[in-house]
Amino acid sequence: MINLNIGMIGYGFMGRAHSNGYNRVNNFFDLEYRPVLKAVAARDKEKARQFADKWGYESVETDWRKLIERKDIDAVDICTPNNLHKEIALACAAAGKMILCEKPLSMNGPEGEEMVKAVEKAGVPNTVWYNYRKVPAVTLAKQLIDEGRLGKIFHYRANFLQDWTINADLPQGGAALWRLDAAAAGSGVTGDLLAHCIDTAIWLNGNINTVNATTETFVKERKHQLTGKVEKVGIDDASIFFCRFGNGSLGLFESTRYARGHKALYTFEINGEKASIKWDLHDLHRLEYFDYKDEGKLRAWRSIHVTDNGGEHPYMDHYWVPGLQIGYEHSFVNHVADFLESLAKGTPCPPTFRDALETQYVCDAVLDSAKANGMTREVKHA
Amino acid sequence: MINLNIGMIGYGFMGRAHSNGYNRVNNFFDLEYRPVLKAVAARDKEKARQFADKWGYESVETDWRKLIERKDIDAVDICTPNNLHKEIALACAAAGKMILCEKPLSMNGPEGEEMVKAVEKAGVPNTVWYNYRKVPAVTLAKQLIDEGRLGKIFHYRANFLQDWTINADLPQGGAALWRLDAAAAGSGVTGDLLAHCIDTAIWLNGNINTVNATTETFVKERKHQLTGKVEKVGIDDASIFFCRFGNGSLGLFESTRYARGHKALYTFEINGEKASIKWDLHDLHRLEYFDYKDEGKLRAWRSIHVTDNGGEHPYMDHYWVPGLQIGYEHSFVNHVADFLESLAKGTPCPPTFRDALETQYVCDAVLDSAKANGMTREVKHA
Amino acid sequence: MINLNIGMIGYGFMGRAHSNGYNRVNNFFDLEYRPVLKAVAARDKEKARQFADKWGYESVETDWRKLIERKDIDAVDICTPNNLHKEIALACAAAGKMILCEKPLSMNGPEGEEMVKAVEKAGVPNTVWYNYRKVPAVTLAKQLIDEGRLGKIFHYRANFLQDWTINADLPQGGAALWRLDAAAAGSGVTGDLLAHCIDTAIWLNGNINTVNATTETFVKERKHQLTGKVEKVGIDDASIFFCRFGNGSLGLFESTRYARGHKALYTFEINGEKASIKWDLHDLHRLEYFDYKDEGKLRAWRSIHVTDNGGEHPYMDHYWVPGLQIGYEHSFVNHVADFLESLAKGTPCPPTFRDALETQYVCDAVLDSAKANGMTREVKHA
Amino acid sequence: MINLNIGMIGYGFMGRAHSNGYNRVNNFFDLEYRPVLKAVAARDKEKARQFADKWGYESVETDWRKLIERKDIDAVDICTPNNLHKEIALACAAAGKMILCEKPLSMNGPEGEEMVKAVEKAGVPNTVWYNYRKVPAVTLAKQLIDEGRLGKIFHYRANFLQDWTINADLPQGGAALWRLDAAAAGSGVTGDLLAHCIDTAIWLNGNINTVNATTETFVKERKHQLTGKVEKVGIDDASIFFCRFGNGSLGLFESTRYARGHKALYTFEINGEKASIKWDLHDLHRLEYFDYKDEGKLRAWRSIHVTDNGGEHPYMDHYWVPGLQIGYEHSFVNHVADFLESLAKGTPCPPTFRDALETQYVCDAVLDSAKANGMTREVKHA
Repeated sequence: MINLNIGMIGYGFMGRAHSNGYNRVNNFFDLEYRPVLKAVAARDKEKARQFADKWGYESVETDWRKLIERKDIDAVDICTPNNLHKEIALACAAAGKMILCEKPLSMNGPEGEEMVKAVEKAGVPNTVWYNYRKVPAVTLAKQLIDEGRLGKIFHYRANFLQDWTINADLPQGGAALWRLDAAAAGSGVTGDLLAHCIDTAIWLNGNINTVNATTETFVKERKHQLTGKVEKVGIDDASIFFCRFGNGSLGLFESTRYARGHKALYTFEINGEKASIKWDLHDLHRLEYFDYKDEGKLRAWRSIHVTDNGGEHPYMDHYWVPGLQIGYEHSFVNHVADFLESLAKGTPCPPTFRDALETQYVCDAVLDSAKANGMTREVKHA
Repeated sequence: MINLNIGMIGYGFMGRAHSNGYNRVNNFFDLEYRPVLKAVAARDKEKARQFADKWGYESVETDWRKLIERKDIDAVDICTPNNLHKEIALACAAAGKMILCEKPLSMNGPEGEEMVKAVEKAGVPNTVWYNYRKVPAVTLAKQLIDEGRLGKIFHYRANFLQDWTINADLPQGGAALWRLDAAAAGSGVTGDLLAHCIDTAIWLNGNINTVNATTETFVKERKHQLTGKVEKVGIDDASIFFCRFGNGSLGLFESTRYARGHKALYTFEINGEKASIKWDLHDLHRLEYFDYKDEGKLRAWRSIHVTDNGGEHPYMDHYWVPGLQIGYEHSFVNHVADFLESLAKGTPCPPTFRDALETQYVCDAVLDSAKANGMTREVKHA
Repeated sequence: MINLNIGMIGYGFMGRAHSNGYNRVNNFFDLEYRPVLKAVAARDKEKARQFADKWGYESVETDWRKLIERKDIDAVDICTPNNLHKEIALACAAAGKMILCEKPLSMNGPEGEEMVKAVEKAGVPNTVWYNYRKVPAVTLAKQLIDEGRLGKIFHYRANFLQDWTINADLPQGGAALWRLDAAAAGSGVTGDLLAHCIDTAIWLNGNINTVNATTETFVKERKHQLTGKVEKVGIDDASIFFCRFGNGSLGLFESTRYARGHKALYTFEINGEKASIKWDLHDLHRLEYFDYKDEGKLRAWRSIHVTDNGGEHPYMDHYWVPGLQIGYEHSFVNHVADFLESLAKGTPCPPTFRDALETQYVCDAVLDSAKANGMTREVKHA
Repeated sequence: MINLNIGMIGYGFMGRAHSNGYNRVNNFFDLEYRPVLKAVAARDKEKARQFADKWGYESVETDWRKLIERKDIDAVDICTPNNLHKEIALACAAAGKMILCEKPLSMNGPEGEEMVKAVEKAGVPNTVWYNYRKVPAVTLAKQLIDEGRLGKIFHYRANFLQDWTINADLPQGGAALWRLDAAAAGSGVTGDLLAHCIDTAIWLNGNINTVNATTETFVKERKHQLTGKVEKVGIDDASIFFCRFGNGSLGLFESTRYARGHKALYTFEINGEKASIKWDLHDLHRLEYFDYKDEGKLRAWRSIHVTDNGGEHPYMDHYWVPGLQIGYEHSFVNHVADFLESLAKGTPCPPTFRDALETQYVCDAVLDSAKANGMTREVKHA
């Protein structure tokens, strides 16, 4: 077994999710590589130390540049706020490190282009943590589409609804709340939530050509945690767009953090000539499927419990027994497994930086259309 | 079109449901017969009059014997409390009237035997209002079983859960509450609710051979509305039994009026070697179906929305368009349609009195086993 | 009881649904008025006769003008294709007849304006059959909103998904398929399906100010039943728009007849600061409700089975007992009851022609924006 | 942090689940103890080695007695077939080792009594892996009951339905199929599945006093993997019983491996005077709750997504963020956490051997009643 030495930059929610993925992957998958948690980098040494102790990192760095310079690091995991992705990624590429970068790839398309150029020039393996692709039910959806079961696609719709920022007293910026700070996050729900929906959509349904969008910021001002002052909120609280895919289908996307009652309601539905598919993150081990070729009186939506380990359901033969569900975190375990298998085979591990750049371009077009009062915007392609 | 003159005895909840069935059947079904609401009989003339006005009965009688004697009555609908079914049915048979009798058939098996003998001797068409057989989704279940899709049956389970008598201040007896009075109802949930479950079960899965049962009366005393005194409650509040069907399958039945949160939760599930079926009265237009022969990765429970009018779903081509649900009351409309079609064809309209006697025997065995501390009781057959 | 003589023009699917409403309303509601089915008008005398026999109309007319001229007709029910609504309504108003007009009100806003002007000048009672308002669960949603339980509204989303025109061999025009013919229908799903969503939305959430829309026609040519020739399809097969309501909330609407697996999936969801609501026509007797003020660990979506006849659920005390569901058709019975009660009280019965004109203006703006490549369109107000 | 050296005996499905629990617990919980995977014992050295490599055990033993003798083992995890539990547990107690024993505790009550006596005499910490208690939604149910929210309990019902042994060609005995071999398993579904239901029931609803039961073996003979001969099947394929709890409520339990379509459908429902609760293992992160004190028109079943990390939902503040579900395996992580916390506090970790003996007595009574044709059997108490 080959050790793959991981260096993690950042230690927040995603740092935990990724670390869990590294720690567990070899318990469930037979792989040539074994991740070794070599070092974590964060400015606050004490917090970095605590994180390292908790998750088994061997050492800590307080300067991410140091971490990248270390000879004993093979792959760098970028878990910082979005505004640091580019700089770190470029440094990694220059140092010849593999990169696993948290999504969204970058603050915007142009930044993403630099990053793609850097990793492709350096030839370093790279992937972006659009982990929902790796949910077994979502991968099953991909298989069904690739097998042609849906036929010509007419409609794609997705939404990602949350409700955690309704309270106007919630501050922006700093530690856990950098997602509300435009300077750190780039955008609001567009880059945070819609980006997930867009990545899945492109994977399942192909490229998006044009968008018409609108965004809204319901709470206009919030106290900023870093400055201590009430400041204008620069992010979008809600983002909606409709679009045309390259295959002629119509798309409809919505995301918000103001949908009372929804914590993480990421759903998508695809309507094809022959069959349709639905999925919902709240019960992520299920896939809803309707097949028109079923016998008339029995034709119905099926609620597939994607937990069969007979080899029929993607990833699931690595876990427990049929009927026993896995959870959110396993999407990351699966993603690590895919990355390590790609490494062994010498193939890319989608979504690569280039794949993620395509999503970035859609986000840019969405934000641009919204600024232009909903006018149609062409999407650049990666 | 031939007029079929109906005489109704009783005017309560079931009187309304049946009357609605008579009034509507010709709007939806093409039939040789047309029910005409000729008369309603009830002791309270004023209430009978109001009921007649509401539902379109041409006349009223205050003595049910008078109604039976009338030459212009073809068929009598018995909607009284259970303790009057036998006497009225015998009088109807003697007068050569067709009978549509509310369920359960009788207070017990021996009464039922007299009734069966009487109608069969008189040769009068007869049916018992076990209306849930006539719900399209339930009839679809029957079709699937008859087509052999389930294969050998292993398990049958059903329950009928309500919560309307939890309040100990609710009185027993009289008007709307005769169902709590053993003298009028014969038994509690066994005859009222389990009888429905048993009728469906026998229809779908064949005869029951043995039962082991228990019953419970949670509220031991209630004020009686007729006497004004607090009296011992003679009915069963809850009734549970397991059983063996003639086909070797195991049955499990439960009924109660103390299941907080359930108003009319009648569900059944059948597990066969090849397929399984589930149904729930709360969403009666749906049938859940699992078919083992489905392709492995797509194998799942289907939620069939039984509303297709393309002729594929029983009864539904008589109503609206696919996707639009019908309600509880349509089971009675369908039952009337079946009765009128049977009349035109000269065939019996199941469940007949004899069919309902089989259910009565199971109820008797259940109550008997419960009295005997759960000991096995053989079920007599009709 | 006062007889209200009804004259029906047209006899299709909606003619049946309305007739059923007239026939049944007095069985369930105590009202001063009783609808009498006086006459039905249709060009095909034989078909009109069959319809009259089935539903109990006393007479038939082959010229709708004759029907309107009859002195014994109090109210006219317009059930024709959309392109005849205006002419008939103007004639009715001129003759002083009450009007119950099938939705959408008209082919477009300007037509609708004439109709509103006519009925208001004539002072005749008028209503438009946006029947989904009258579903008990939807009316309950209205009550909850009016009681202030949702607080400030952030989001409104609705869709109406069907799949019955996917087959490209389906012809357009004539009898049952006039909805595919732009000359008869005015538009496709915008006027047929989205109009329902818009009517409910305006009722629940107030006026819409601006829209950005797109439409699509997936099958470009279909054989026309009247000409026998393959002709260009003029209707929209799918229609999508986002919008701003007057109250500041964002709206998102989608409709299509190409969503495989959905027969009549009309759903809406409203997210307020304090609570959220969801509804789905496929199980129309349920309302989903989330209330933030619920205790933390028990906070959840509730699936309210809107069947309680204790007077708590709108309309339901007129039907059966708790737990027993009603169906699609009862929305029309309820609508008739509302109309008759309004008549008795001398008040308007919403949605009136003027209410429906507001919906028409939104439809116009949607179609207009779609033609203009999604550019923002202001909505005119009624 | 104190190391707790674990010795595992057995390496099957449960061996994996427990090992995963040990490996992950310190990532999520702040604890004084840290499990160290010291050794695994199994007769097949090669397989033991592979298992050890996969899960991180430091050493292997081929004789479980050797493992127990080792000074560097603090706690022994018994993951063998049921027929070895007693012997191993007695040896552990004699050696002063803590014990974590897979369920069911023993082959029968008398064996269990010996085991309880041994661990209590030795004073060693002990627990039995009835892991479903540790599912957050189930623990929430326990909290709600303990807070008195359900009031007087009327009904408890549970079932555990699977379908994996329908195929008559499946052999019995040996490796993965010892559960079909009465000599190794003691009983069939009664000890394997109903035992889970009974453990939860006793925890939530108190002791069971009497039972009436039946069992069935659908496939009477199967090839035995160890002998290679077709042999009589000694286990129960299905087991059903009704019972009386000490608190006066009625219980109803069913388990089978012949319920086509169900992989691991463990459900329970409790109906109290004031509220009711339902749960289903297939979507284990949800708890259904109905509260009668809710306002009338909003009274409904709630589907609580038990994923809130605000400290309101048991265990969940240790994992991800609200809305993100955990899976089956986390029940074991939570169980380990509870065990380690109990150790730190010096308190027992339920379910202890004595708790599990109570379940064993119910299983004995069930099997005994089934043999006696369903006659009532008193349940002995631990």
